[in-house]
Amino acid sequence: MRIALAQNNYHTGNFSLNTEKMLASIAQAKAGEADLVVFAELAVCGYPPRDFLEFEHFLQLCETAVDRLATACVGIAAIVGVPVYNQLNQGKKLYNAAVLLEDGRVKQVVAKSLLPTYDVFDEYRYFEPAKSSRVLHFKGQKIALTICEDLWNIGQYTLYPHSPMDELILEKPDFIVNIAASPFSAHQQAERLYVLGENARKYQLPIVYVNHIGAQTELIFDGKSMVLGKDGASVVQLKKFEEDFAIVDMGALTTKTTALAPTHTMEDISAALTLGIQDYFGKLGFKKAILGLSGGIDSALVAVLAAQALGAENIHCLLMPSRYSSDHSIADSLALVKNIGVSYDILSIEKAFEAYETTLAEPFSGLAANITEENLQSRIRGMLLMAYTNKLGYILLNTSNKSELAVGYGTLYGDMCGGLSVIGDLYKTEVFALCRYINREKEIIPDNIITKPPSAELRPDQKDSDSLPDYELLDQILFRYIEERQAPVQIIEAGFAAEVVQKVMRLVNMNEYKRHQTPPILRVSIKAFGMGRRMPIVAKYLS
Amino acid sequence: MRIALAQNNYHTGNFSLNTEKMLASIAQAKAGEADLVVFAELAVCGYPPRDFLEFEHFLQLCETAVDRLATACVGIAAIVGVPVYNQLNQGKKLYNAAVLLEDGRVKQVVAKSLLPTYDVFDEYRYFEPAKSSRVLHFKGQKIALTICEDLWNIGQYTLYPHSPMDELILEKPDFIVNIAASPFSAHQQAERLYVLGENARKYQLPIVYVNHIGAQTELIFDGKSMVLGKDGASVVQLKKFEEDFAIVDMGALTTKTTALAPTHTMEDISAALTLGIQDYFGKLGFKKAILGLSGGIDSALVAVLAAQALGAENIHCLLMPSRYSSDHSIADSLALVKNIGVSYDILSIEKAFEAYETTLAEPFSGLAANITEENLQSRIRGMLLMAYTNKLGYILLNTSNKSELAVGYGTLYGDMCGGLSVIGDLYKTEVFALCRYINREKEIIPDNIITKPPSAELRPDQKDSDSLPDYELLDQILFRYIEERQAPVQIIEAGFAAEVVQKVMRLVNMNEYKRHQTPPILRVSIKAFGMGRRMPIVAKYLS
Repeated sequence: MRIALAQNNYHTGNFSLNTEKMLASIAQAKAGEADLVVFAELAVCGYPPRDFLEFEHFLQLCETAVDRLATACVGIAAIVGVPVYNQLNQGKKLYNAAVLLEDGRVKQVVAKSLLPTYDVFDEYRYFEPAKSSRVLHFKGQKIALTICEDLWNIGQYTLYPHSPMDELILEKPDFIVNIAASPFSAHQQAERLYVLGENARKYQLPIVYVNHIGAQTELIFDGKSMVLGKDGASVVQLKKFEEDFAIVDMGALTTKTTALAPTHTMEDISAALTLGIQDYFGKLGFKKAILGLSGGIDSALVAVLAAQALGAENIHCLLMPSRYSSDHSIADSLALVKNIGVSYDILSIEKAFEAYETTLAEPFSGLAANITEENLQSRIRGMLLMAYTNKLGYILLNTSNKSELAVGYGTLYGDMCGGLSVIGDLYKTEVFALCRYINREKEIIPDNIITKPPSAELRPDQKDSDSLPDYELLDQILFRYIEERQAPVQIIEAGFAAEVVQKVMRLVNMNEYKRHQTPPILRVSIKAFGMGRRMPIVAKYLS
Repeated sequence: MRIALAQNNYHTGNFSLNTEKMLASIAQAKAGEADLVVFAELAVCGYPPRDFLEFEHFLQLCETAVDRLATACVGIAAIVGVPVYNQLNQGKKLYNAAVLLEDGRVKQVVAKSLLPTYDVFDEYRYFEPAKSSRVLHFKGQKIALTICEDLWNIGQYTLYPHSPMDELILEKPDFIVNIAASPFSAHQQAERLYVLGENARKYQLPIVYVNHIGAQTELIFDGKSMVLGKDGASVVQLKKFEEDFAIVDMGALTTKTTALAPTHTMEDISAALTLGIQDYFGKLGFKKAILGLSGGIDSALVAVLAAQALGAENIHCLLMPSRYSSDHSIADSLALVKNIGVSYDILSIEKAFEAYETTLAEPFSGLAANITEENLQSRIRGMLLMAYTNKLGYILLNTSNKSELAVGYGTLYGDMCGGLSVIGDLYKTEVFALCRYINREKEIIPDNIITKPPSAELRPDQKDSDSLPDYELLDQILFRYIEERQAPVQIIEAGFAAEVVQKVMRLVNMNEYKRHQTPPILRVSIKAFGMGRRMPIVAKYLS
């Protein structure tokens, strides 16, 4: 049996686009004499559709799309991910399902059993889990069709009381198909290969795995669809971060002896963030980005990633010096814009800053300068950038990193402005690592930007290290608290100073209110700020 | 058997405060010769604890608190809501549970079976559902202990495949206890009475119902704990929007023949929003609020609610006229501040506006005035307000209403600034209704503010109706789309112009990016923007 893997970039709710892409894949599969073409989880509507699943009309559009796809499935069959109604009068109204389209109609329906409801996933919000599983019968073969999480219930501590494969295996299937919506994070691929390999070996069956590619707001899907032999070794591997298509003959699988070339983590992160920017703009119908260049490393990195994603000709930078800006902040920024070939303007914030000082002189008379004046500068810059977006149709890229978002070292409505946070899921030390990766062959980001001490330049001789521990130290504490959810005492016992640990944890907790108002953050870690981390704002824990 | 109902205002993660309150209730119950005191769902840690439940240390603090409460339970028993570990090696790690504390220790544990995972609820994100249910044995009586949703699986279309009461009733319990975390919304009380009444009548058992009171960020709990007779009629009803305590003798329940006085919806909404402000400030350790008064109805209403909540002496208003401000905008605002007794400053935004015009003159030369200049004015006001918060320790109250949030008729980083959105879950027509309610006895909000046509006053002679349908019309379309999730064709068939319907729905969808960055919104409706409505930003549906 010849099976086509269709790895497409869908757009949530864009039924005409998604259907067109799927019809093209069906035609391509037919031209390649495939028997069956496999699409990703919920391909019809895009993943995640989120609360659109509560709209009947949205679900009708899913049905209409399936009808259109079915019509094309003559002389070929397709496995298509789509939400379908639960016909019983109990339970959630929908299943997260896949349909087998054959002979111009829906032949069989399979529902997902295991519904991830953690981190960024909300599937039990919408879907009823399938209570039992049956194989698909197709051209004399039996297919164990599973949907993403259905294969992930392995290991000593299992999240779900049963695994659908343990039921499906009783029917002696010929192979497993797994349709997925498995987002990228830095170490996801290793886990994915482990999980799929374990299943192949445990059940002694080959696996056809089809994933999404493309970004949906903060979630970035990396593709890497594949076929594994029953020994768990990869036979076919589709591209990462690109649409791709392949046809495999399931009767003639030969294990590739060459392992996949190991990837530099920063190569993947660079590709992921580039795709994240591209799809945010492309799917919203925008082309041009603006950002503020401070002379620091965060904005420099975002400028490079934006130019990679959208083309240098679509990036405009604002350099907005103040009385506290160092000479090198402008010089370094100018060197950067020259290196990457983006346009720029230089606008002093002095006039606006003086106007606020005048306006506020009377009510604030006798009060000492404090964070107010620093925030004013940051907010004036945010306002100038937003004025450009309004006047000229840019989207503002936010340049906050994960370390500063974590401890609230940023100004709400100032440097926290933007339509999309590009590096908000990279700790400062990872920002440095990614810059070094970008500079691996030649100096794209001026060396001085990377080596000078980080500073917000909002008061004379300010350095980040005046307010925060060194980033090497800070990031380790943050990782232990945010990613690993360690207790204060655990972190202290690991050798970090109690006073620093307590300060950092308090800062993280008391700044939930700021993170509540950040733009969506492209997710590349196992625990990003945003939809996958849901904390109360009004809480007292550790603060 | 004498049972005490302890209706307390908890603070998420504030274990010392919560435990002290519960110890005081135990002492009060003991003094009142109660046999058993009942606390609300997850009282120990506050509801909702959200992702704090993923922190082992947080759970240890829950256990420590229970140990402390248990020590006090000698000569009296308590039912205490708390997360407990699932001891099996499969499933979610926790149960949403209640423990019976007696003789100084945990005597029995009951876990919640039905886990709401919809709207604002995420319980299956954290908890394993109980597979079976057993009654509590206490002083020779059998108690069917249920946790909130456990009683809500009624009606023709049930969300869950079983109801724990159907299993518990087989043990012939003497009465039902339901501990809840049931947030307020305008029509919640009617549904709650219906659900509890149905259960009482179906199982022919009295019900002791204990709910939270108090606001946790956007969720407002209204209390209204109660005891119902087996006929479903209310016997005892605790206060709404206040802490309360009562002891009932279960052997001598007499149905009150007098029905509860019917409540004006706006009375409840006013009380809910007042409590929402109070707890947001109090639990964060703040006292003073600032807001911008535009002369319009939204900011006037927020000023009144803030003064109700925090005291007029803690409210400061900024009046920030521009070249486009009408004469009446200042006069009306001054009349309001005089009526309610709050302090104010008048700050012209002209200087700052001119500074931006000068700064942007060159890059924007030759470009026509557009939304940019309107947004600049709104953002200058936001910056001045934020400067006050930074300099003087206020929290800024946001004054956006639900209609404008829905269609994006507001400026990000301008009038959308703030720490808390007070009326973001009230449609404009509800804002008018609440103002009329507030003025029911005397003119608190100057009549001219209520009767003049709404305007943002960001350009000459601007009216909201230049850009938007009349609010009477707009709000009906919005309610059908947002609360009722109707399809375009349904709304059009109900008699609304197709062009208007399509424009409104498109505006709602394309402004998800703005709502992503709003402050938390006090929830008073069945579908508020925020944690209970999760939509993709990058989507194409209907737009």
